Amino acid sequence: METFRVQSREFEYNVIVGTGAWRSLRDFPLHGYSSVFVISEEALWCRWKGEFLKEAGLRRVQTLWVRPGERSKSLRVMQRLAAELLLRQADRRSLLILFGGGVIGDLGGFLASIYMRGVDCIHVPTTLLAQVDSSIGGKTAVNLGATKNLIGTFHPARLVLSEPRVLGSLSRRDFRSGLYEVVKHGILDGPELFGRLEQSLSSLRRDLAEELETILAPAVKVKVDVVNRDEREAGLRAVLNLGHTFGHALEEATGYRRFLHGEAVAWGLLGVSRLGRRLGLLPESDAGRIDELVRRLGPLPRIDDLDARRVLPLLPQDKKAVAGKVRWVIPERIGKVRQISEASGVAVAAAFRDIQKMGNDPT
Amino acid sequence: METFRVQSREFEYNVIVGTGAWRSLRDFPLHGYSSVFVISEEALWCRWKGEFLKEAGLRRVQTLWVRPGERSKSLRVMQRLAAELLLRQADRRSLLILFGGGVIGDLGGFLASIYMRGVDCIHVPTTLLAQVDSSIGGKTAVNLGATKNLIGTFHPARLVLSEPRVLGSLSRRDFRSGLYEVVKHGILDGPELFGRLEQSLSSLRRDLAEELETILAPAVKVKVDVVNRDEREAGLRAVLNLGHTFGHALEEATGYRRFLHGEAVAWGLLGVSRLGRRLGLLPESDAGRIDELVRRLGPLPRIDDLDARRVLPLLPQDKKAVAGKVRWVIPERIGKVRQISEASGVAVAAAFRDIQKMGNDPT
Repeated sequence: METFRVQSREFEYNVIVGTGAWRSLRDFPLHGYSSVFVISEEALWCRWKGEFLKEAGLRRVQTLWVRPGERSKSLRVMQRLAAELLLRQADRRSLLILFGGGVIGDLGGFLASIYMRGVDCIHVPTTLLAQVDSSIGGKTAVNLGATKNLIGTFHPARLVLSEPRVLGSLSRRDFRSGLYEVVKHGILDGPELFGRLEQSLSSLRRDLAEELETILAPAVKVKVDVVNRDEREAGLRAVLNLGHTFGHALEEATGYRRFLHGEAVAWGLLGVSRLGRRLGLLPESDAGRIDELVRRLGPLPRIDDLDARRVLPLLPQDKKAVAGKVRWVIPERIGKVRQISEASGVAVAAAFRDIQKMGNDPT
Repeated sequence: METFRVQSREFEYNVIVGTGAWRSLRDFPLHGYSSVFVISEEALWCRWKGEFLKEAGLRRVQTLWVRPGERSKSLRVMQRLAAELLLRQADRRSLLILFGGGVIGDLGGFLASIYMRGVDCIHVPTTLLAQVDSSIGGKTAVNLGATKNLIGTFHPARLVLSEPRVLGSLSRRDFRSGLYEVVKHGILDGPELFGRLEQSLSSLRRDLAEELETILAPAVKVKVDVVNRDEREAGLRAVLNLGHTFGHALEEATGYRRFLHGEAVAWGLLGVSRLGRRLGLLPESDAGRIDELVRRLGPLPRIDDLDARRVLPLLPQDKKAVAGKVRWVIPERIGKVRQISEASGVAVAAAFRDIQKMGNDPT
């Protein structure tokens, strides 16, 4: 088990990764809170609540349900949860435990940040994506119409508990989707982590917690390090958008129905690998290793049927863009990325054509 | 013209009070923003926009309308405004100018705090209440159903510009409603300011900006001082709730239709003056001066027809309460208040009966 310390603007908190992480809740000063609420999905909670409550040493918790799926990340659902909290007399000293994946974390974190001008929350991420990425750093969000994460806050958790065992109940596809974010962290981190991923990632079993832990902890560390240096995304944190520029456009073009988030990021990684090549920024050898690792993890939903004229105009709507520009994060080698604001439309379109052709010719 | 410096957790900002305050916008680094949006009420903006834009030296601004009234302080209206901002391509570097009273400030400040995880805003308060109170300190809020300010954030403005001239277009009743908050600040501050209020407040004309300024600046200073010592309401800031405990219950009992906020606070001030007497905390002489000043400002909407059995149970729902207790702010003398959590139900009910009788016998 590993503990990482995250410095947020207002306080420090621990991200605890590894088998037995839930037990750490026993050391958390719960007595300071007037009440504890769990926000989760019903099926997920029913599967794990026995073990979680026992290990965490919790008794009296109240539960609030959220339906699985991105559509729950809305102001409407947030409003319903706030009304339920009020009805159950949650006050400023209540604590929210967010038990679930990215949707629960983003939505519940947003709720925690604005209910009575802010209550504390603890993240208990249950997907690979949430464990290595969204639970760390305090970003919260809901969608507005088709625009993802338009509304949100920075509201770090007081504690993040990442138990790899819980990943055993993920579907194969959900698990794989999270692996692509791990690959992203490998590209950001450097040859050592990336090399380990090349050796183990495609054979990694989601039900072997000990094995998972060896990948999980370094992947978490990448995120923690970035957040510690740039909590509010003044600049550096934007490197985490690696693969997300194409990714978001693909998700939006398909109405968030075709891809899991990590799958869209996977195409995005392939896209910036190609774009980096075309711009002369990324050597062929590194591009090849990135492509190879992404493709080896398994099949991705197709993109060859998408019309580039529909997808590419969606790029500037990425909310990281300032005044209409697209800011790309491009790998220069494994372990180094560069942010650029000027990539020619021709190069971008060509890179997108490249990955569309890959789709026709899966390895 | 006076400038007060407020230290928020993240940055310092100026609160500028006095005739010509709008001109200070010329010194504000507007060039750093990608676009400027004004959020206001249509009639108010049409009345003042010529003067405001000219004095502030602004040209290209886009405007978003909010309907007057507390009902606009909702998630629904916030969502509509966010969608409009998106449509007009507001990005993270856009600036919102909140031109209006408490509703515009609370709602617009909330919007600013969560649109793309936070954009900057400037408050240009146009009511007395907003100038001396709500524009300072960064509290934002919307209501949820009947529960006032349940949802909100802390998001200080980058600049607050309080021009007394604009108060000339307030209705007599709106102006008076703000005066009660000024009285509250006088009680918190001490005999000097309170004495000046006794001399001038009941004859103060809302269309004499220079005269207003002499009251406005010290009243603003009271709020600034409290916020500078306790931005997040860890303790001290709660003294600003003086008069708000009874006040909120009265507003809620009448569905926010009978009282302007300041009028409910006026009854609340009379209520805690009585409660302070009954608890033996406040000498009769000071209680008398408080009562006298509040009553002299003019008639208040009646409360003698309200059923105490309906009003008093609404007290604990005040969101400042922790775990069901009511926290009272009680004057001990002019210039000193005490926070107490244990006031007997009997004393509270008696104090409420006292002020109900006052309602039957207006001075």
